[in-house]
Amino acid sequence: MEWSPDKSSRVPVYIQIADYFETRIVNGEYPSGSSLPSERALAALLEVNRSTIVSAYDQLNSLGLVRRIKGLGTVVNLQASEEGIVKRVPNWEEYVKGGFLPLNDPLTRRIHKIVGSDKPYINFAIGELSADLFPVTLMQEAHSQLEITQYLGYEHIQGNLKLREAIANHLETHRTIKSSSSSILVTSGAQQAIQLIVQSLLKSGDAVAIEDPSYSYSLPIFHSAGLKTYRLPVEDEGIDPEQIVSLYKQHRIKMVFVNPIYHNPTGTTLSCERRKRLLEISTKYGIAIVEDDPYSLTSYDQQSVSTLKSIDQDGSVLYVSSLSKIVSTGLRIGWIAGPQSVIQRLTDAKQQLDFGHSNISQWIASQLLTSRELDNHLARLRIGLQKKLELTVEAIRAEMGDEARFNIPLGGIHLWCELQGEWDELRLFDLAIGNGVIFTPGSTLGSSDRHIRITFSKMEDHLIAKGISGLAAAYRAAKAAR
Amino acid sequence: MEWSPDKSSRVPVYIQIADYFETRIVNGEYPSGSSLPSERALAALLEVNRSTIVSAYDQLNSLGLVRRIKGLGTVVNLQASEEGIVKRVPNWEEYVKGGFLPLNDPLTRRIHKIVGSDKPYINFAIGELSADLFPVTLMQEAHSQLEITQYLGYEHIQGNLKLREAIANHLETHRTIKSSSSSILVTSGAQQAIQLIVQSLLKSGDAVAIEDPSYSYSLPIFHSAGLKTYRLPVEDEGIDPEQIVSLYKQHRIKMVFVNPIYHNPTGTTLSCERRKRLLEISTKYGIAIVEDDPYSLTSYDQQSVSTLKSIDQDGSVLYVSSLSKIVSTGLRIGWIAGPQSVIQRLTDAKQQLDFGHSNISQWIASQLLTSRELDNHLARLRIGLQKKLELTVEAIRAEMGDEARFNIPLGGIHLWCELQGEWDELRLFDLAIGNGVIFTPGSTLGSSDRHIRITFSKMEDHLIAKGISGLAAAYRAAKAAR
Repeated sequence: MEWSPDKSSRVPVYIQIADYFETRIVNGEYPSGSSLPSERALAALLEVNRSTIVSAYDQLNSLGLVRRIKGLGTVVNLQASEEGIVKRVPNWEEYVKGGFLPLNDPLTRRIHKIVGSDKPYINFAIGELSADLFPVTLMQEAHSQLEITQYLGYEHIQGNLKLREAIANHLETHRTIKSSSSSILVTSGAQQAIQLIVQSLLKSGDAVAIEDPSYSYSLPIFHSAGLKTYRLPVEDEGIDPEQIVSLYKQHRIKMVFVNPIYHNPTGTTLSCERRKRLLEISTKYGIAIVEDDPYSLTSYDQQSVSTLKSIDQDGSVLYVSSLSKIVSTGLRIGWIAGPQSVIQRLTDAKQQLDFGHSNISQWIASQLLTSRELDNHLARLRIGLQKKLELTVEAIRAEMGDEARFNIPLGGIHLWCELQGEWDELRLFDLAIGNGVIFTPGSTLGSSDRHIRITFSKMEDHLIAKGISGLAAAYRAAKAAR
Repeated sequence: MEWSPDKSSRVPVYIQIADYFETRIVNGEYPSGSSLPSERALAALLEVNRSTIVSAYDQLNSLGLVRRIKGLGTVVNLQASEEGIVKRVPNWEEYVKGGFLPLNDPLTRRIHKIVGSDKPYINFAIGELSADLFPVTLMQEAHSQLEITQYLGYEHIQGNLKLREAIANHLETHRTIKSSSSSILVTSGAQQAIQLIVQSLLKSGDAVAIEDPSYSYSLPIFHSAGLKTYRLPVEDEGIDPEQIVSLYKQHRIKMVFVNPIYHNPTGTTLSCERRKRLLEISTKYGIAIVEDDPYSLTSYDQQSVSTLKSIDQDGSVLYVSSLSKIVSTGLRIGWIAGPQSVIQRLTDAKQQLDFGHSNISQWIASQLLTSRELDNHLARLRIGLQKKLELTVEAIRAEMGDEARFNIPLGGIHLWCELQGEWDELRLFDLAIGNGVIFTPGSTLGSSDRHIRITFSKMEDHLIAKGISGLAAAYRAAKAAR
């Protein structure tokens, strides 16, 4: 070997070595199946540490040029085409490991896969309404009023103007929030709203606080983007705002993400006093608040709880909500209400991400929000959800007694259950799947693997007891397995 | 001042100083309107460089706690509420400067703003079809076949299965591409497809090659994410694949983005020889290719040009296309066809970004793609686009003669014009706006500010000559202004 690496170069030595072999492999000097020199021999020859050679060979491995086979060493691995030319197809396995957006965690991926399959699981994992809670007539009405008479072009990227006006009006009448069409951005559900906020308003190194447990833990965006994420434990009255003060003093947190009303997953509502204190802290330290509010209209006792946004005097709150939990997830209609400069920034980001929302679903959403039937639907929805909750609680008490502990929420679609005794989360999940039941394991929503989230909105009434029974059987088996 | 910074701490001194004053400002020791010590005096007092104090005060400024006023120094700036309590509202101006996604460039933002307004510009800037090219009957038919009878839940995140089957079938019959529903992801137009690819498959430091000029330059994602972007000049026969080899040797580029057929903006088609060579290079060096193909079905002479994907034997190509340029942008229906492992990774990312596509537009797209009327529509579309191109060229020749130079494309919707003489791009843009005409300045699409892109698909026939006339007048005025 006449070549040796240039140790004074700014290119790291292991890269130089990898490049050297890459060129020779591609040129055919090391045909497929041949071995590269052993790590030890090459290290001696080039007068470098063995670990440098290991790094160089790892690099070739990640390029898909070699396979490192135990006992055999480092073997060139190229595909030969029919014409006998050596080929090196893009190494997709390596590409899929890249990305600013990390993969969902394995358990969340499994849940999506199961939910995406057509198998008839009893589904306590997905935040959707059941067929019997869906306003079919209302939707049909909205759909039939829609006429396609002209070119369907790009909608305004901020969202169809009529829809934004309808949302502003709805926010005022239903949630006592004052806003206007120019301070609203239509998004693809609350999911996209959160993405846009993180990708547009935070930068690497920024510290944020999120509730624990929280849906946010299932969003990989909080684990990427170089964000520092701090936890705010959810107590019976919601998070303790004073903890935000100490987080601010220690870490200069820039943004707090909260779901104050009928919290996902615990069902908790942030007390009135704490809501006020949270806003005070926000404007004392200049910390932005993102309020996720999918459930406030589902109050079982019709008592309306005021959103943070409705009492925010200073524009400290970005308010996120959607039609997903009250009408339909499939329309993918969510929105953000906030200061105009922020809405413009987020609109610019939405243009980049998807060039605005599909128009037909926006037209339908606009019809829905202005329909006089909406309030009747919401009234039926509240009654329907409460009934499902009652059926769920009744079944859990019958099947699991004291072994399952929970607070009963006053609205929303989730029940957060602490299961007693010794059991393994993954085993419980698998056993439940085996019994035809799927739920959301607590660890995907934060630090607790002693809890499970039972989302009771999706199943028709007559399936709830059956599902809980399958879950209880899985729980007994999981405990017995320890 | 009894306090002094701890110079042995790991916390930078300027941060310690900023923190010190932040606490005192928030506690009211420095009320709103009061001045902080001068930079010089404080530097002497704390025995640090003046630049350290400048950094500390800059930090307080970015927190919105002070304003730095020339001649007056650094003044505390807090809002007092009605109750007299000092408030510090989140400093949104600073938030909007953050973000993984940088803002669109100012010119692109202006174009979006103008296009988003309802003013009746003659629009040569947007890649949409005109009302007279829109298949109203086809759309109405698709829409009327749609019935809402049950809950509209989340679609499969990869896309509605029927739609994916329809796309796979369409790719086979119309573009001789073999694929299957499991190797296709439905996206919100090609825009989202590119975003997903970049955000999921590339990482900071990765080198990519993009055509110059290209639509990609208007996508801020290529300027962020720590990507290194290298240019491939588009010649009469498209890019020169040999340049990819040298880029690979120098920079180890991992991915090449190309729009080989009726390229945006130049209208060029990559020659058959170069297409083959591009694939050879891809599989010699293991470089992934992203083929953006919005226009291949718009061939005026009905000659079909084969896409890279149709001749790709090795799965090196991620193929991106959409319904936007052949049916409607407003449906937001695009797709990616590629290796299943990649499609799964991108599906996971789409779940994170928007939790899948709205269902109604997917159902309509599925009806459209399987309608027997689609081919008739495409035939009319080709004739219609060719007519608009002819009207555009005729008007340019009449108005600008030799001053405007261009190659005539054989398909697509863009004409790339080089305008002779001395003129300023921004001035031309403003003057054209003044004449009621909007076009895309060359610099937003790459390195040329001598070219403009005239997108002729959006305007109805009778408005084209008028628009070109307004543009030509602006051009004459821009030249005269030099």
